[in-house]
Amino acid sequence: MGGSSFGTQFRLSTFGESHGVGVGVVVDGCPAGLPITVEEIQRDLDRRRVGQSRMSSARQEGDRVRLLSGTFEDITTGTPIAMLVENENARPGDYEAIKDLYRPGHADWTWDAKFGVRDWRGGGRASARETIGRVAAGAIARKLLATAGISVVGYTLQLMHLRAQVIDEAEIERNPMRCPDPQVAEEMVALVEQARRDLDSLGGIVEVRARGVPPGLGEPVFDKLDADLAKAMLSIPAVKGFEIGDGFAVANARGSTNNDEFIRRSDGTIGTVTNRAGGVLGGMSSGEEIVIRIAAKPPASIAQEQQTVNRTGEAAPIVVKGRHDPTVLPRLVPVAEAMMLLVLADHWLRQRGARL
Amino acid sequence: MGGSSFGTQFRLSTFGESHGVGVGVVVDGCPAGLPITVEEIQRDLDRRRVGQSRMSSARQEGDRVRLLSGTFEDITTGTPIAMLVENENARPGDYEAIKDLYRPGHADWTWDAKFGVRDWRGGGRASARETIGRVAAGAIARKLLATAGISVVGYTLQLMHLRAQVIDEAEIERNPMRCPDPQVAEEMVALVEQARRDLDSLGGIVEVRARGVPPGLGEPVFDKLDADLAKAMLSIPAVKGFEIGDGFAVANARGSTNNDEFIRRSDGTIGTVTNRAGGVLGGMSSGEEIVIRIAAKPPASIAQEQQTVNRTGEAAPIVVKGRHDPTVLPRLVPVAEAMMLLVLADHWLRQRGARL
Amino acid sequence: MGGSSFGTQFRLSTFGESHGVGVGVVVDGCPAGLPITVEEIQRDLDRRRVGQSRMSSARQEGDRVRLLSGTFEDITTGTPIAMLVENENARPGDYEAIKDLYRPGHADWTWDAKFGVRDWRGGGRASARETIGRVAAGAIARKLLATAGISVVGYTLQLMHLRAQVIDEAEIERNPMRCPDPQVAEEMVALVEQARRDLDSLGGIVEVRARGVPPGLGEPVFDKLDADLAKAMLSIPAVKGFEIGDGFAVANARGSTNNDEFIRRSDGTIGTVTNRAGGVLGGMSSGEEIVIRIAAKPPASIAQEQQTVNRTGEAAPIVVKGRHDPTVLPRLVPVAEAMMLLVLADHWLRQRGARL
Amino acid sequence: MGGSSFGTQFRLSTFGESHGVGVGVVVDGCPAGLPITVEEIQRDLDRRRVGQSRMSSARQEGDRVRLLSGTFEDITTGTPIAMLVENENARPGDYEAIKDLYRPGHADWTWDAKFGVRDWRGGGRASARETIGRVAAGAIARKLLATAGISVVGYTLQLMHLRAQVIDEAEIERNPMRCPDPQVAEEMVALVEQARRDLDSLGGIVEVRARGVPPGLGEPVFDKLDADLAKAMLSIPAVKGFEIGDGFAVANARGSTNNDEFIRRSDGTIGTVTNRAGGVLGGMSSGEEIVIRIAAKPPASIAQEQQTVNRTGEAAPIVVKGRHDPTVLPRLVPVAEAMMLLVLADHWLRQRGARL
Repeated sequence: MGGSSFGTQFRLSTFGESHGVGVGVVVDGCPAGLPITVEEIQRDLDRRRVGQSRMSSARQEGDRVRLLSGTFEDITTGTPIAMLVENENARPGDYEAIKDLYRPGHADWTWDAKFGVRDWRGGGRASARETIGRVAAGAIARKLLATAGISVVGYTLQLMHLRAQVIDEAEIERNPMRCPDPQVAEEMVALVEQARRDLDSLGGIVEVRARGVPPGLGEPVFDKLDADLAKAMLSIPAVKGFEIGDGFAVANARGSTNNDEFIRRSDGTIGTVTNRAGGVLGGMSSGEEIVIRIAAKPPASIAQEQQTVNRTGEAAPIVVKGRHDPTVLPRLVPVAEAMMLLVLADHWLRQRGARL
Repeated sequence: MGGSSFGTQFRLSTFGESHGVGVGVVVDGCPAGLPITVEEIQRDLDRRRVGQSRMSSARQEGDRVRLLSGTFEDITTGTPIAMLVENENARPGDYEAIKDLYRPGHADWTWDAKFGVRDWRGGGRASARETIGRVAAGAIARKLLATAGISVVGYTLQLMHLRAQVIDEAEIERNPMRCPDPQVAEEMVALVEQARRDLDSLGGIVEVRARGVPPGLGEPVFDKLDADLAKAMLSIPAVKGFEIGDGFAVANARGSTNNDEFIRRSDGTIGTVTNRAGGVLGGMSSGEEIVIRIAAKPPASIAQEQQTVNRTGEAAPIVVKGRHDPTVLPRLVPVAEAMMLLVLADHWLRQRGARL
Repeated sequence: MGGSSFGTQFRLSTFGESHGVGVGVVVDGCPAGLPITVEEIQRDLDRRRVGQSRMSSARQEGDRVRLLSGTFEDITTGTPIAMLVENENARPGDYEAIKDLYRPGHADWTWDAKFGVRDWRGGGRASARETIGRVAAGAIARKLLATAGISVVGYTLQLMHLRAQVIDEAEIERNPMRCPDPQVAEEMVALVEQARRDLDSLGGIVEVRARGVPPGLGEPVFDKLDADLAKAMLSIPAVKGFEIGDGFAVANARGSTNNDEFIRRSDGTIGTVTNRAGGVLGGMSSGEEIVIRIAAKPPASIAQEQQTVNRTGEAAPIVVKGRHDPTVLPRLVPVAEAMMLLVLADHWLRQRGARL
Repeated sequence: MGGSSFGTQFRLSTFGESHGVGVGVVVDGCPAGLPITVEEIQRDLDRRRVGQSRMSSARQEGDRVRLLSGTFEDITTGTPIAMLVENENARPGDYEAIKDLYRPGHADWTWDAKFGVRDWRGGGRASARETIGRVAAGAIARKLLATAGISVVGYTLQLMHLRAQVIDEAEIERNPMRCPDPQVAEEMVALVEQARRDLDSLGGIVEVRARGVPPGLGEPVFDKLDADLAKAMLSIPAVKGFEIGDGFAVANARGSTNNDEFIRRSDGTIGTVTNRAGGVLGGMSSGEEIVIRIAAKPPASIAQEQQTVNRTGEAAPIVVKGRHDPTVLPRLVPVAEAMMLLVLADHWLRQRGARL
């Protein structure tokens, strides 16, 4: 029950540690007949990669993915698709000094508590490098869902007190914060640079949207579409909250204003006038846009001194060296997109069994 | 892939519809040797039951649970524990009039979109009566976890703008709102009564805490403890948001103040000075109290007229009759507790396989 | 991980003990829109029931199934289908005398070794009554597969040295042995009656065939169609062997004679001239008839004295009283059919995800 | 639902095709703290490798395994253990000529029927090279079970009419047939050489035994230990039958002679006088030796002309060139051992959850 797999019909299993041979993923259950090239997968991986800008950490790696199985002549064959990204440029020496210290905000302590042993180099499997496998698998899910007209887009909605006032998706990839509001993006960049100088880190919010999702995806009880999205998002490192549609704002709403009324749309299909539900009703997609938000904590690795203990419980100061981002937001975007894509691909396949 | 099961080692499968024969659950994977009586299960069910006060709807049912299997002489035998609550007092006539209309905020439309057919009586399987099975299974999980010193408690933290200022757990079961702040509870009751007169409904927030959880529960990648809690909570009807620890507040926090520093506690164990993480680090329990919050939307069933369409898309006004709560919060509390208990029981068992 | 569930997309979970409240099953994943009545389910259960003839034991029960959920107006709704058969006519007194003794050939000892506690009344959950849930679920699978033109039939092929020389399916339900060869059936009946007089029991072989199975069902690696059939069959009490097609006879065959050559059939489809493979190639159905055989041991409960030990290891003679069959074969037939139906229904649904 | 995973708690997922980049496996759920080296894994792989003798085909490959993740300083860390063997010496040209023909006895036809597309080079994923991942995972299971005193050994029991008369395990690795009877082994070798000259292939039987298995492993209903063993064995290419203990011979046995009577052994533990059950009672291990047998068909690839059809159904003769074994038996032995090890490791871990 290692818990390194996700999904039921479109199912991925990631493996690998930050400073071992590499990180990778096996996708089982992708239908045969889908055209996919390694370049398409690499494209999504490149968006996740570190070192793209001053916003993210200085570790420079190619992160070139190798497609080990599951396609033939650039078509999926219905067999497991394994992908591997070998680690390069690993500097375990950065971690040697603190291998017996529990970094505040990190999983060093809980890892020891659980397993009694851990690969302390670069966080081992707790490293964000694990998400490479998710993004690679998400790229396949993206291609699969595109055949059904489903698309997913994510962006940085908020950094600390700075929140996008305009959602212009064309702007997202044009600024290092992946913020859809170019003016707020500039302010965010300045805030990040100041945080770097302060040896500190910053929290924020990412929003992800899915369009073209047909009504009826998701199972009505435990495997609700939004329940699976919540799990998917909370499984990403640093995420501490999830909401769909109006989310926590419903706590202060009345039924008379919170309910979305149904209408017949101009194309004859049934829809809702508003979309406070965020595209899911009773755990199943409504046909409206799916809108979710996740809260990401400020990265735990900061270059200023903190107090902690070592493995035997003795108090000790710690300074976490190495290459660290003052914010995870820009890199969180493609990972959050991937997780939504994976959930949708799974439920899109599951829906094939819903009716006689 | 019906999605009516939850958990991996401690696994429950619920069944049943609101106005069919009954609702129930099968729990598979409970260890042998646990003392449990039907009365202990009934006790938790009674907390969930409707009609306990003016706060909740008028449907009066005994909801007496029948233990069909899995125990012998009040001890679990390691075999599936099946439980059934037969439906009484069902009045499908309340629903006959609106069986072809899509109630705003309900799953009627998405259910039809998914399956093409549905039991429209009382919401069918989308009814909150489905949660009876969860609470019954949760009662067993509660008993199991008690053997390890783990306990769970939930309460109404917030109703609309009213938020508990004091957390006095002794007060929770003393007021109909299950609010730990007796003064705020009174204000909440007044607000609910006003909403009933307004033919409207109200949203709010429930908080759930777990104590005595040993460090190391949860799997580090997809099956993180908080990821499974998020799924568990979002699988409850009406829940639109989930957060753990400081939750969405981390969006406006810095690493220097958000990290919880480690200390050696007076009993020699390792802990953290603060608990902003809410008891989970890297997906595994830290040994600190687990604290989560969920946002519940105002119940969709309101007795005032709303606009909607019927199955063929024609516009029609709708008035939802029947017995409905202006708030789900007091009844949500035991359901949310149950879901946390079920997640913890599952991971507590999973942890048995973590080490050689 | 209680292991009381079977299947992935068409998934059943059985529960219940021989002398508890009852035995039952929950089927999750049956597509919505399938017409099914409780009478259709009862029909298959009646074939499994004891007391139909001198061939089987004297316990007379109605075994009336109650449909608790999952259908509405005799149509499946896509929600879990729960079914319950309450126990009647239970005589635990028959077992009181031997509750501390380990019956040879039974699971009393292994059950104690595993769980440390057991419901000793009538074998508890180890009783063949557990198969009631399988047959009830199988009846739904039968109805589902019929929509695709797939049918399954089983029969007693062999009892001790007596083996059917003719396979006349019209004869199967005409004799108490469910043997397709009426002449051999008579000899079998005489042998069973002699065994009853000898206070002994007899082994045999059941054969099951599936027709109309389209090519391509089954997954090519671990979840091969024949692998899942093997598991399904070995999960039935008393089964000690499984073979498909020529089965163990291939141990003495050459490739030149064992391979089935391909041809184009008169209807233009591709098939094989012979069917030594038994309808499965590389784990996937070939379109030819699926043919499997299972070996059933002589029932362990015999009325003559045997040597054994009690729970503390002390030697003691034992005489197993109660109502016992000298052969399980006629009642094994519908159970084996059910298991094949369940495997086929599952893989028929799984196939929906195989291709883009 | 690709079906390329096996096991519940000790779970492996294989990937890869015969003539792609490589074949591999990810093992999730191995407990932390197990010492294991890549050499130990290679040792089992070397036993499976082709080209060891005249008995097996001429393809010479190193099949060097690369350990990608999951261990640190030669100790398992509780994270997924990924392993990769890259393909060398692949000669797809051997297959180009027959890529549109359906080889008798092979899965070409069923693969096309299922997926509509396939990697025809060397059988693609249907190649026996897929079993490399099983053997690599089995090596870890072997190491894990050794910590509990459990061991597994397999051997060639029968080739055509030749059956070992003596079971001398010391002889197994001393002859190319892996037959425990050295005299019969010589006859087997002669028979294989004759078959090679005849351009034909031969069937046989492999027996596998497990010792030191504590009583109580296996789940009593669907996930019986023998049911999981049956699935495991039938999932191996070429296997057409499975039996445990006396197996098909029970069809001709009486209860009075087939039941194993219980005794207290000299060490005070409970056991049985005989072991006709093969070490499993009611789906759970009895503490006696587990003994199973599997029937393997003669390899389908023979160098003599056979009749078949192409993808469009036109009749065509076929001669299967390439490197093929006249018997799979010696190489089947380590694969069958691996599958038993994997089942036992899984149930050994599952047993940790059986009792309070």
